[in-house]
Amino acid sequence: MENNAPVTIIGLGLMGQALAAAFLRAGHPTTVWNRTAAKADRLVADGARLAPSVDDALAAGPLAVICLTDYQAVHDLLDGSGMAGRTLVNLTSGSSAQAREAARWAEQRGARYLDGAIMAIPTAIGTTDAVILHSGPRADFDAHRSTLEALGTATHLGADHGLASLYDVAGLAMMWSILSAWLQGAAMLRAAGVDAATYTPFAQRLAVGVAGWLPGYATQVDRGSFPAEVATLETDARAMAHLVEECLALGVNAELPELLKAMADRAIAAGHGGEQYPVLIQEFAKPR
Amino acid sequence: MENNAPVTIIGLGLMGQALAAAFLRAGHPTTVWNRTAAKADRLVADGARLAPSVDDALAAGPLAVICLTDYQAVHDLLDGSGMAGRTLVNLTSGSSAQAREAARWAEQRGARYLDGAIMAIPTAIGTTDAVILHSGPRADFDAHRSTLEALGTATHLGADHGLASLYDVAGLAMMWSILSAWLQGAAMLRAAGVDAATYTPFAQRLAVGVAGWLPGYATQVDRGSFPAEVATLETDARAMAHLVEECLALGVNAELPELLKAMADRAIAAGHGGEQYPVLIQEFAKPR
Repeated sequence: MENNAPVTIIGLGLMGQALAAAFLRAGHPTTVWNRTAAKADRLVADGARLAPSVDDALAAGPLAVICLTDYQAVHDLLDGSGMAGRTLVNLTSGSSAQAREAARWAEQRGARYLDGAIMAIPTAIGTTDAVILHSGPRADFDAHRSTLEALGTATHLGADHGLASLYDVAGLAMMWSILSAWLQGAAMLRAAGVDAATYTPFAQRLAVGVAGWLPGYATQVDRGSFPAEVATLETDARAMAHLVEECLALGVNAELPELLKAMADRAIAAGHGGEQYPVLIQEFAKPR
Repeated sequence: MENNAPVTIIGLGLMGQALAAAFLRAGHPTTVWNRTAAKADRLVADGARLAPSVDDALAAGPLAVICLTDYQAVHDLLDGSGMAGRTLVNLTSGSSAQAREAARWAEQRGARYLDGAIMAIPTAIGTTDAVILHSGPRADFDAHRSTLEALGTATHLGADHGLASLYDVAGLAMMWSILSAWLQGAAMLRAAGVDAATYTPFAQRLAVGVAGWLPGYATQVDRGSFPAEVATLETDARAMAHLVEECLALGVNAELPELLKAMADRAIAAGHGGEQYPVLIQEFAKPR
């Protein structure tokens, strides 16, 4: 443990405050900066040092964790500051393009740069439940890994600075899709008088089971070969038609089933009806 | 084990053949019937008896498992047959309304009736991996449970004959949604040069993690109360906008993200922005 390594936190929204508090709890000398200084009061009471300026904050140590509203705020605040020789870990939410552009911007100013995404809520920060994704040069991640681990489970995804943002939104798409599919089923079963607590263990077992198929299906996607080992897309599409009809008959929303069916129908029209579901990668990989 | 109980299988498509073969392997005297008798050749070689008529097939024992193309085929074939006193287990795919109507039809003809849905592919039949859902009178299921367990993991969902069909399509919606969300992420990451095998363990951990939240969220749905313990729907919707923009920038399909965002936006417009994701049950529970 090198938990005497000094750290700087720039941006003290709810998440920034949680990050600073986790560093303090882990024993790191912690310098904070925020446009509205009062946001630092609680942290200062807990031992943080409030920097009078961004330059002063950056000068406090080799590592600065940035957590602001958006990338524009990062540029507005740090352009012209003394970032040379520092490592910036930018946990601000943004796109992969913004992350790559910020990396170039920081490197042109003599800083090392890691982009990151926090897959956790503020109250989980500082526990292993808080997964924090990082992308950028591996050596820069390794140099600060044990410090970053004070914030949660620190993961390095690759050298491409855009990866943290991409994995983040891809993960959120999975999260919302599972929740939505579960709500779809819960709405259908509720129409038959079954409450969500009764239906949910079934949905949960199914989700875990399907998750287990993904590595095998990934092989199909990477090979670009989709033999129907389990079922053909045509069989799926027939069952999708049942699902849509059932939703319409029950008077529940059918938009998600209709979208699934529309994408399968397009792949079938393109000649893939005898292949297996992952052949839909060809539909997902291009704009409508 | 009462695996000397005689069973009848009506309908010898791929699935019907698998069902009959599983009964034979478990030692049940097995009578089969199919419109095209040649489909029974292999089963007869393995010890099945081919009935010369549907009435003869139904007369062979107390339990007949039916697996035909659709419910119309069930009615066309069995209307006027000697089903009185028999228990029919209808594993034909159809809607909850068709299942309930078939139950009334069979009961009017003096038969006991269970509806069912097979959540498995033919090659899994006869293993515990084959989950077979049943709905209808519990006593009728219990009377034949040990026989039905020769086909897979036999589950009873409730007395409403429509439940097997509803759980089946709700489960399929979960399956397709997870596969689609995973393909969405795989398409996004592939645009950044990451292959599916590299991305997939991340998606898999996330899916299993989110599945674990469902019971807690089910409590919110059943209470009709959605306090934002984790995040507000407004926070989700902002991240959904990032996801949509990222898909458009990458040139990958954005329809699934756009649908998720449209449903969240509608719930926010209805005043639920400060509540939590499961409040979307109100959108899923009504037609667009």
